Amino acid sequence: MNISVLGAGAWGTALAKLLIEGGHTVTLWGHNPANLDEIKARHENTRLLPGIPLPGSLLFEPDLERAAGAELLVASLPSKALDEVAARLVDFNGVIVSTTKGIEFESGHTMSAVIAHRMPHARIAALSGPTIALEVARGIPAAIVAASEHEPTARRVQEVFNSSAFRVYSSTDLLGVELGGALKNVFAIAAGVCDGLGFGDNTKAALITRAIAEMRRLGVKAGAHPETFAGLSGLGDLTVTCFSRHSRNRTFGEKLGRDGRPEEILTAMVSVVEGFPTTRAARQLAHKLGVITPIIDEVHAMLYEGKNPQEAVRDLMTRELKAED
Amino acid sequence: MNISVLGAGAWGTALAKLLIEGGHTVTLWGHNPANLDEIKARHENTRLLPGIPLPGSLLFEPDLERAAGAELLVASLPSKALDEVAARLVDFNGVIVSTTKGIEFESGHTMSAVIAHRMPHARIAALSGPTIALEVARGIPAAIVAASEHEPTARRVQEVFNSSAFRVYSSTDLLGVELGGALKNVFAIAAGVCDGLGFGDNTKAALITRAIAEMRRLGVKAGAHPETFAGLSGLGDLTVTCFSRHSRNRTFGEKLGRDGRPEEILTAMVSVVEGFPTTRAARQLAHKLGVITPIIDEVHAMLYEGKNPQEAVRDLMTRELKAED
Repeated sequence: MNISVLGAGAWGTALAKLLIEGGHTVTLWGHNPANLDEIKARHENTRLLPGIPLPGSLLFEPDLERAAGAELLVASLPSKALDEVAARLVDFNGVIVSTTKGIEFESGHTMSAVIAHRMPHARIAALSGPTIALEVARGIPAAIVAASEHEPTARRVQEVFNSSAFRVYSSTDLLGVELGGALKNVFAIAAGVCDGLGFGDNTKAALITRAIAEMRRLGVKAGAHPETFAGLSGLGDLTVTCFSRHSRNRTFGEKLGRDGRPEEILTAMVSVVEGFPTTRAARQLAHKLGVITPIIDEVHAMLYEGKNPQEAVRDLMTRELKAED
Repeated sequence: MNISVLGAGAWGTALAKLLIEGGHTVTLWGHNPANLDEIKARHENTRLLPGIPLPGSLLFEPDLERAAGAELLVASLPSKALDEVAARLVDFNGVIVSTTKGIEFESGHTMSAVIAHRMPHARIAALSGPTIALEVARGIPAAIVAASEHEPTARRVQEVFNSSAFRVYSSTDLLGVELGGALKNVFAIAAGVCDGLGFGDNTKAALITRAIAEMRRLGVKAGAHPETFAGLSGLGDLTVTCFSRHSRNRTFGEKLGRDGRPEEILTAMVSVVEGFPTTRAARQLAHKLGVITPIIDEVHAMLYEGKNPQEAVRDLMTRELKAED
């Protein structure tokens, strides 16, 4: 199959490598031609995926419209770039697989809805789950979900990406899979704050458990299936993000918990921390849907209202006693 | 309140400390009087909870029947000792809280049923969740579930244990809470095997996600509520056990994955690895109930049938493609 990966970040590069190894013809596009040239010359994405040699058969295309001549596109872009790129691919009528995790603030839309709005002829899928790019690039076993409202598309994407070390499940709950992936970045910030404050595994396990309940409440109210949040894109992705040293969202939270100075940390990190804009969008979505989200609210208070991290965690821990829900 | 903690292990000692700090009168009983004397003399459980000074008001009682004169008992014993201890407390008619995690092989019973069989007059509860003893003893925030089929008992236990850093939720799904705590030890062995084989966070997140689905399938068929397994005693405890360096079950699995010699490892560790007997009991329970449990089956094959860990993980990862369930 002829596939183009849009976005030469760590994940886009790792997926391009995986797809070539699966026997496909793969072209990599990125918004920065100099960066593409460098990856091509070195056979390595030295900055974002160091130490991983890329197959010699990987193609590079600095022209977006030409890259979009493929049968299948993989959009592996930051959320703020996705809309702009999709707007340039109006006529594409193949399958586009989004790996971008986010919620649009104004509309409350997930990334597939942002794509659908711009690309009316495309069949849209999302790929989401607990997958650290460097581990996938090294061939370490992982599992992920391919979701599309159109079941044959979900199965098609499942077949395209599946390999012996990369097990792909399918789902038709596109919204749930996307919300799981997006919301987990908010909770990962909270997990990082716990780390930064010197709390332990117990605290984090309690947080993860409450976070899954909160994610499910919000997701179900938005129209997703409850069981999706117990799957790879909910629980699985949340778990790895909250415990992994590789997560930028968790690391950001850890700095916040330790140094308690959001403004300075933000300036340095905000462009790569998807959980930052997602926190604002998730809180607005929760308000609109009338869902109680104590963790999202406390993360919002820390990031946007100057609340002290210690106070935020204390407020979370001392809520009134109640039965588990 | 007058409380006796039965079992002077790490968790029993940590709970005794917590309960004293909550204003209760607490007596600690253990099967080894010399060990009790040593803890009493040093004001510290040097072997199992090093570096944690115990309150001077903690009482010690080497006589089990006298210790059982309290209003509330906390049974914090290895699963193989619980039946024997309970058999000596037939007349006790207060509340007994089990923190023991296991499944009886012959009957498929959880620990509360083992207690109920021996102590017909007691009101029985279980306390289970993601709580590493050393962290709780240090006052690091944690959350846990108090479960009893008798709701007022669940609430009573909730109130007795709750403190600002130890948040207790209540549940009436005693069976689900106990199965979550017991089964997680089996999956923790599998997670450790992944670590021992050099796999990454992705692999473990995938395993945890599938383990929760497997735990829920088995638990629901046994009569528990599905949502319990998304709570602290299911997901929460599983997560912390699979990622924590403090888990004996995970550590045991790690050695198995690295060295692949169950017999020698077993001899050295088996007495403290609750997941070892639980694997056998869980597999038998699954067979009896007709539930498909691929992870439990592979752990069983490694522990009891001499299967190579690498082969077991490969067999788990290469099962046929399917939709998430």
